[in-house]
Amino acid sequence: MPPPLLVTFAAGATGSWWIDRIDAVVGDRLPTADRLAVIEGWEAQTPARTGWILRGVTSNTRYTTHSEVDALVASQEGLSRPQATKAALIPIRKTEAWWALAQDERRAIFEERSRHIRIGLDYLPAVARRLHHSRELGEPFDFLTWFEYAPEHAGAFDELVRRLRETEEWRYVDREVDIRLTRISV
Amino acid sequence: MPPPLLVTFAAGATGSWWIDRIDAVVGDRLPTADRLAVIEGWEAQTPARTGWILRGVTSNTRYTTHSEVDALVASQEGLSRPQATKAALIPIRKTEAWWALAQDERRAIFEERSRHIRIGLDYLPAVARRLHHSRELGEPFDFLTWFEYAPEHAGAFDELVRRLRETEEWRYVDREVDIRLTRISV
Repeated sequence: MPPPLLVTFAAGATGSWWIDRIDAVVGDRLPTADRLAVIEGWEAQTPARTGWILRGVTSNTRYTTHSEVDALVASQEGLSRPQATKAALIPIRKTEAWWALAQDERRAIFEERSRHIRIGLDYLPAVARRLHHSRELGEPFDFLTWFEYAPEHAGAFDELVRRLRETEEWRYVDREVDIRLTRISV
Repeated sequence: MPPPLLVTFAAGATGSWWIDRIDAVVGDRLPTADRLAVIEGWEAQTPARTGWILRGVTSNTRYTTHSEVDALVASQEGLSRPQATKAALIPIRKTEAWWALAQDERRAIFEERSRHIRIGLDYLPAVARRLHHSRELGEPFDFLTWFEYAPEHAGAFDELVRRLRETEEWRYVDREVDIRLTRISV
């Protein structure tokens, strides 16, 4: 487990990813921009001519049990695979009611009733994923999840997000933006 | 449940608390200073002539179940009681081995085996407490816990920290500093 990594997502005129589209799923959208830069590290400089910036930190698991970690580790792949030229950045904010729940109540909704981990496993290893926590940084969203996949898995990825949005957990989502991207060939 | 609050602890020449002593429990200590300022808010300005600064964010519960939350809420009191003129700031860092554990493994050590919440309940309402998360801010410690109590409960507070330090959970603590303070009369 690496130490927490600050990741800055800067939309604007530079960056390694074209922004194909930005959709508001729940609540306010984010402004249009041409490109997205994904900048790792606490000392990162954000590029000039930046539109919006979102920041998040990788961290320890919050709900995943030991056996679930084993199942994930057995199947998942890392970011930056050459064939994974498609990406999605999905910023989410949850309601005050969610954050007021105790740990066992949030776990029960997250997995026992919504099968969040179980659903995600159905799309491994095709979809690689990294979760960033933003709530403790005073950011407008609570989480930023970054996904990477090959173009032939775009339909599977759409199915994954559709299934998650139908769950009980998603009733506690009060803002969600869906940003789709394509890696810029070099 | 209020939204996350950034709290800056700035040791130096100003602030509402005298620093009585700073003890290294495990690992490196922190430099001596006369006073501590506790500054709340994301827009807070840190005072000039500051020695060290530690920052943390209040957040949702991570291990506490619904029934445990009920027990805590029934007994605990808030900060800033007039009679609570004594305080302690205890910054803690946990090992990589701790953070590599899954959620259910950390919960089992934290409460089923170490009785962290159960031990804390024995000292309510005498000892008031606020936990701040620092790990996701890139800070040198993972947690900053702030305690307030009346002078007649100083012995009970010493017993509380001694009992916690004897637990299995504390085997995962690789840095701990114990800072004791007295509120400056105005």
